Amino acid sequence: MIGTEIEHLIKMLSRLPGLGPRSARRVALHLLKNRESLMLPLAQGLARAAEVIEECPSCHNLDTVKPCSVCANPARDATLLCVVEDISDLWAIEKTGSFRGYYHVLGGTLSALDGIGPEDLSIPHLVRRVRDGAVKEVIMALNVTIDGQTTAHYIADCLAALPVSVTQLAHGVPIGGQIDYLDDGTLATALKSRKAV
Amino acid sequence: MIGTEIEHLIKMLSRLPGLGPRSARRVALHLLKNRESLMLPLAQGLARAAEVIEECPSCHNLDTVKPCSVCANPARDATLLCVVEDISDLWAIEKTGSFRGYYHVLGGTLSALDGIGPEDLSIPHLVRRVRDGAVKEVIMALNVTIDGQTTAHYIADCLAALPVSVTQLAHGVPIGGQIDYLDDGTLATALKSRKAV
Repeated sequence: MIGTEIEHLIKMLSRLPGLGPRSARRVALHLLKNRESLMLPLAQGLARAAEVIEECPSCHNLDTVKPCSVCANPARDATLLCVVEDISDLWAIEKTGSFRGYYHVLGGTLSALDGIGPEDLSIPHLVRRVRDGAVKEVIMALNVTIDGQTTAHYIADCLAALPVSVTQLAHGVPIGGQIDYLDDGTLATALKSRKAV
Repeated sequence: MIGTEIEHLIKMLSRLPGLGPRSARRVALHLLKNRESLMLPLAQGLARAAEVIEECPSCHNLDTVKPCSVCANPARDATLLCVVEDISDLWAIEKTGSFRGYYHVLGGTLSALDGIGPEDLSIPHLVRRVRDGAVKEVIMALNVTIDGQTTAHYIADCLAALPVSVTQLAHGVPIGGQIDYLDDGTLATALKSRKAV
């Protein structure tokens, strides 16, 4: 018989993305076997993170400082604004170290199916930021999915009247990619956008 | 830039079984987006579980009561003792509702490779329990792996001198199993152990 306390813990863990009931059970047991080294530090870490981490009012990133450390950095290029769907995308781009502008996190994509409109995302805020700021180029770094591209086009329309150029990430063969493993769409796009060597 | 507080949280989450750095990041973001409904309850649930859940001194199950609710139940059959590798196995058998005896959790299997000997598991305790108790049948419910079966044989040897019968779970075609998808070993075993209809 699983005690209700353990049952409750497993239930909460199974609500995490990527964990089903079985893996939640495994995680719960692992935690209970490593109380001092993992379970208690995790409990404290969660409580503390929930307390100190806040959303940046400017770019919607998460950080312990407000505005976030990216927005608070005056050395970055204020003429460049990179639009991403989610914070994890911001982290991914920031990890490459090849972008020195600022970010704007939408918090998702437009989706007629899920009833997500521009007001549910930070699109009105983005338009205000571009209108009132020093931005010269808005780089769309949205996922290459139907919803992502719909959102990119919608945003491009919103920004059409403003004196900024709107660009998007290049599509093509990924670095390290093997031609015969690529999907038709990527290959066709790469071919169409070919460049002089 | 990921703040150190978030970095620290992701690092802890990535130490959970089944979570890599990428899924840990996803979990961390999901938690931060659902603070009130998930993150804080989980932090409290972890801290509370770490405090109240203890190992049963008799069967090595985990429960909020000591001895655990299985061992504390006098209605169960004291002549039957089911030996399992891990607590999750106990839970799995208990969920079937078809076993009314008591359990003994080994806490792993013997493994020459990992340097795990009988003293690292609760095997000496098992032998004492069988010698001093009312047990008539010891049911080996260990995984059908090399280590599991080695452990089962070792335990059977330890119990050979005691007046108990040692049995193991039947091997064969799983319920719902399709013959042509089964591995050779299972099929050969099922054929050898065939029974009259």
